[in-house]
Amino acid sequence: MKEQDIIRYFCSQHQQTSIAHGIGDDGAVINTLPEHQLVVTTDTMVEGHHFVTQSPAFLVGFKLMACNISDIAAMCAIPKWATLNITLADFNAEWINEFAAGLKECAQQHDIVLVGGDTTRGTQLVVSLQLIGEVPTGKATLRNQAQLGDAIYVTGEIGQAAEALKCLQRHDYQHSMLNQEQMKALYQPESRLQLALDLRQYINASIDISDGLLHELELICENSFVGAVLNLDDIPIEEHLDVMTAITSGDDYELLFTANSNNADAIFQLGEKHDCHISMIGNIRTGNKIEMLKGSQVIPYPNCSGFDHFMREYE
Amino acid sequence: MKEQDIIRYFCSQHQQTSIAHGIGDDGAVINTLPEHQLVVTTDTMVEGHHFVTQSPAFLVGFKLMACNISDIAAMCAIPKWATLNITLADFNAEWINEFAAGLKECAQQHDIVLVGGDTTRGTQLVVSLQLIGEVPTGKATLRNQAQLGDAIYVTGEIGQAAEALKCLQRHDYQHSMLNQEQMKALYQPESRLQLALDLRQYINASIDISDGLLHELELICENSFVGAVLNLDDIPIEEHLDVMTAITSGDDYELLFTANSNNADAIFQLGEKHDCHISMIGNIRTGNKIEMLKGSQVIPYPNCSGFDHFMREYE
Repeated sequence: MKEQDIIRYFCSQHQQTSIAHGIGDDGAVINTLPEHQLVVTTDTMVEGHHFVTQSPAFLVGFKLMACNISDIAAMCAIPKWATLNITLADFNAEWINEFAAGLKECAQQHDIVLVGGDTTRGTQLVVSLQLIGEVPTGKATLRNQAQLGDAIYVTGEIGQAAEALKCLQRHDYQHSMLNQEQMKALYQPESRLQLALDLRQYINASIDISDGLLHELELICENSFVGAVLNLDDIPIEEHLDVMTAITSGDDYELLFTANSNNADAIFQLGEKHDCHISMIGNIRTGNKIEMLKGSQVIPYPNCSGFDHFMREYE
Repeated sequence: MKEQDIIRYFCSQHQQTSIAHGIGDDGAVINTLPEHQLVVTTDTMVEGHHFVTQSPAFLVGFKLMACNISDIAAMCAIPKWATLNITLADFNAEWINEFAAGLKECAQQHDIVLVGGDTTRGTQLVVSLQLIGEVPTGKATLRNQAQLGDAIYVTGEIGQAAEALKCLQRHDYQHSMLNQEQMKALYQPESRLQLALDLRQYINASIDISDGLLHELELICENSFVGAVLNLDDIPIEEHLDVMTAITSGDDYELLFTANSNNADAIFQLGEKHDCHISMIGNIRTGNKIEMLKGSQVIPYPNCSGFDHFMREYE
């Protein structure tokens, strides 16, 4: 298989009919919707940092697509077209096949088309996906629009990916030691896309919590010039988990958003409609600090509110 | 500098005013033109394969942008927005500054805005750029539209980048051994964007020749279901270069296109307007073969018509 054949192989698994002119030229030609804006995001995953050699290739492909979708969903936009950059340390046809299948499986669930890419050789496996979405003009939800009096909401449960990763590390990255739920938490996070699109009408500010809930809340506050109260008792975690660990760990692809508390009932109902529990975990207030409460007790703020992919060593 | 600060630093050098909402959210929000299509491309450069440790960071940044622009130009579209994925083996602030400056210098020449990206850590330096352009609907020039009776044209001179690379390899990658012209050929290829936009009205099929002229002509023929005659005497190379080497070497970012030969005068005049020599190097004909002529003598077809980044080892 030659360089251009690899990306062609990836793209051939995606119906190119919905786009004007797909893989095969210097670029892909794409039709956009009138009165819409584009939303563009990109994420890279590096072997030994974001996944390990033992990680199933299918799940690496799935997750690469899923974490990019999460970014587009966090802005309440619809993901549409992707390009892939893949740097291979060696040519392992089975790995490539599995990776392509995982990428496609996740893309297909959301009608996303892989329209092009580039394959290169290197000493380490690196995969980058770039995802383009569309949103009706002016309707993208940003992190700088939190309003005084907003309630703070988060979807789903958090901390499970971090817990699964710890378990995996304890077992020398033997994936057979994880149960189905842990594998899912680590590699196949539930998509909040359809829920986000329904919630758009209520959301003032939103972000995904891939770098840790507390860190992402800091970003909302910083960008909206507001402070917040966070009620730790309301953080949706499993009983045996430590709440401080959960809110400062990464790899949760849930949606953190603020919306007027008058809309709480409608918001909870949308959660039910999409089979996703939504928790109200705090409030936006004046100032520039986040106060953490457990009951009525103020909890000291941690030194590190999230994690930094650049600093993190996976193994 | 933290992970998010690195991409923020890169983007801060680019005026974000022309876009709706730039760096800082999960994605960038972009306004598109009505009655236009998007053209999307991406290229990766890996240290030790596409450049070497000794390569000046400024020039690596410049070239990464330039080779993506060349893809968009080959489709006669206007490049507009870029995202960057950078995997760093170590944190070298000076290298990052220089790389960012080169990327910006090239982007600025074409009003391209870097709107986002992702920074990761790895064992090897890998940089990917994804570039989105716009083109009036239906006006992108493709590689599958060569017509019987078309003449084949190429812009500029070819083979210089390959020659410069050879010289660099002979001198153990000491860049001080290259003259200005060689450095330019290797890292700062002349942009053919404005010329391509002017030529669009005449072009039937087009492609950039980054993977070698002969190989790219094969792609035009293959995709257009035609054959071609290539007159080696008309290939624009410097006297001391070998023509077969020149047409089978990569890293030339010139435009190869076909257009009705009746338009030759107008095409040559556009070349003059843009200070770029355009050569007529052959003709499209029936069949599925490329015949190479030197005078009236048929030259045997080489085993390898271009190079494959995936196979190539830079050092």
